[in-house]
Amino acid sequence: MVETLLEKPARNHGEMVTLEAIETPALILDATKLDRNIERLRQRLTNLGVQFRPHVKTAKSIDVARRLFAEGRGPITVSTLAEADYFAAAGFSDITYAVGLSPDKIARVRALVGEGVDLGVLIDSVEQAQALAEAAQGGGPMPAVLIEIDCDGHRGGLLPNDAAVVEIASILRLADIELRGVLTHAGESYACRNGIGLAEAAEGERAAAVAAAELLRRNGHAALVVSVGSTPTAHFARNLAGVTEVRAGVFMFFDLVMHGIGVCALDDIAVSVLATVIGHRPDKGWILIDAGWMAMSRDRGTQKHPVDQGYGLVCDIDGVPWPDLIVADASQEHGIIEARPGSGAPLPDLPIGSRVRILPNHACATGAQHESYQVVENGNRSVVATWPRMRGW
Amino acid sequence: MVETLLEKPARNHGEMVTLEAIETPALILDATKLDRNIERLRQRLTNLGVQFRPHVKTAKSIDVARRLFAEGRGPITVSTLAEADYFAAAGFSDITYAVGLSPDKIARVRALVGEGVDLGVLIDSVEQAQALAEAAQGGGPMPAVLIEIDCDGHRGGLLPNDAAVVEIASILRLADIELRGVLTHAGESYACRNGIGLAEAAEGERAAAVAAAELLRRNGHAALVVSVGSTPTAHFARNLAGVTEVRAGVFMFFDLVMHGIGVCALDDIAVSVLATVIGHRPDKGWILIDAGWMAMSRDRGTQKHPVDQGYGLVCDIDGVPWPDLIVADASQEHGIIEARPGSGAPLPDLPIGSRVRILPNHACATGAQHESYQVVENGNRSVVATWPRMRGW
Repeated sequence: MVETLLEKPARNHGEMVTLEAIETPALILDATKLDRNIERLRQRLTNLGVQFRPHVKTAKSIDVARRLFAEGRGPITVSTLAEADYFAAAGFSDITYAVGLSPDKIARVRALVGEGVDLGVLIDSVEQAQALAEAAQGGGPMPAVLIEIDCDGHRGGLLPNDAAVVEIASILRLADIELRGVLTHAGESYACRNGIGLAEAAEGERAAAVAAAELLRRNGHAALVVSVGSTPTAHFARNLAGVTEVRAGVFMFFDLVMHGIGVCALDDIAVSVLATVIGHRPDKGWILIDAGWMAMSRDRGTQKHPVDQGYGLVCDIDGVPWPDLIVADASQEHGIIEARPGSGAPLPDLPIGSRVRILPNHACATGAQHESYQVVENGNRSVVATWPRMRGW
Repeated sequence: MVETLLEKPARNHGEMVTLEAIETPALILDATKLDRNIERLRQRLTNLGVQFRPHVKTAKSIDVARRLFAEGRGPITVSTLAEADYFAAAGFSDITYAVGLSPDKIARVRALVGEGVDLGVLIDSVEQAQALAEAAQGGGPMPAVLIEIDCDGHRGGLLPNDAAVVEIASILRLADIELRGVLTHAGESYACRNGIGLAEAAEGERAAAVAAAELLRRNGHAALVVSVGSTPTAHFARNLAGVTEVRAGVFMFFDLVMHGIGVCALDDIAVSVLATVIGHRPDKGWILIDAGWMAMSRDRGTQKHPVDQGYGLVCDIDGVPWPDLIVADASQEHGIIEARPGSGAPLPDLPIGSRVRILPNHACATGAQHESYQVVENGNRSVVATWPRMRGW
């Protein structure tokens, strides 16, 4: 592990830097917590007897993906074809692109398959199946297909008993395109709080996917893959009978939304934004920092939670939270720290130049604002590596 | 103008590409509207007799800045030292860094001054002045200083009559550091709607800055620069007596927040996100597109406006809005288009693969999600240039 980390020197070209010295704002990743979060879900899914296909859209980092698969090819899930390109170039060759495929992206998908990537794509309409069938007519590489199933009315997908599920399968068979199976995502599980309803959401997700797979099989089609997943349901599923794989993304970092849903403790959150105090407004009870929404993202995912964390929960430089200190407001490059309304919590003494770490509402959104992770381990302040992130489409 | 644009070929290496063909999601910039927006504010400020120091944090692009200053060195305003580095490298040498200076950034600021940049920095405390004075002790390049004044309780800054304004000036004088003047920003003008209250906000901004400058002068200090600005107040100020310069950023692109505040027409908005339809849920009245919050940002700036635009207002590929069609919800790479609640507007016929353009709530936030602008002109669909954006700190 240490060797992996030391492959990439920290920012100042070799000399060890610390959280006191690096430039702010900066995205900090606690690799010890990352490894612990990965191990927790991996163990859980092993016990449930299903394969794990982590979603790398949260991290968008080869270095993080190597903590999931030290040398392997996946399996992984991606949310963009740019992610597929990036991870394929690093040797990941078992990839599911889990966003509905638009016809104009078929050429790019085929190029990836032609380069040897075992790529699964997602569709939920006859039109998409026909577009794939048309593309296949001239021969050449084609991706495998998963049919998106709607388990909770959250986003896209066909209902498990929709006749279009079978119609799509028939179109693909005629075109000699591999139908790999079905995929669903319990996005509504994010509306749960404190763990309540998550086991039921997981069972709903399982049941919908399995029902659609059985519909396909009754009609003479194979459905080798029955894919479900979200971080909340992956952590609360009791029974995954009939499911072959689970997807999850934010589980590796966790965040304040996941804490509010009841999936993790505050101490499990592996990412934070390091910031520096740049001013005070004692008349208003404000401490100003150099991390605004550009560093935190505009994600206000806890806004409707019983505990609204503003733009993030404030910790000291070692990551220990003040329970009622939040970034209450943000402009592009300014954050305003306040005591949580109603808490009456005193403001800590943080002179100009002091450093704090902010736990984010949503790790995927906050991560996307940064070019790299500054990696720490074992609660230390030393930055042991800088891991780049990719972006774009 | 055409020459400038053609300097950078569009995505496919020379061959003309169009909005029908480029990959989505993509950030589209209408250079004709950009130029019109720039000319509008430039003319207004010329009439008011003040200098214009545009804020380049909205665009983060040399190519956009070149529409403001075809060959010049500025003056510009920046929100990060990374912006200062980037624009300085392109020849912009008159720069104000308009975020409160933390002591650990002094070394980087001095390096920029040492490279020949006429750099102004912002402070609002005795501690920051003392940190600058300490840094100056050994000699070497130092930035000029502006004192941040609070005109509306929005963020940082000293009240115009605060004795600390004079104390800071005295500390700087003893250390032989140039006190350039005062700076304020009427951030609360964003709370106005339909233009109401903006002239008053502009007058409050002017009066606070002028009062602080007069306090300095009464105490024997110079205050050559009296800097005010926000896009709303810049467009509604009636009298800028005593002000020497105006700053504004989002004016160049505009967005739905500015439309809601009453500063621009929908047709003035120069940036949009091009997206492709990837699915339908007729049972729910949804059209799904491949632009989620990663492409739009999580900014919900119109959430509390009388007209809530969701994650953005939907236009056809030529940028003509459907008045009641919005991106009502978003996940990382999915947007859900719906009729505005209560409007009863019919959904347009948009088959899978159709292209739409989404006007953003907040141009600064949406722009930050993208690596480059795809530039169009004169209402045409041809992409005449790709302009990169910078990021980071």
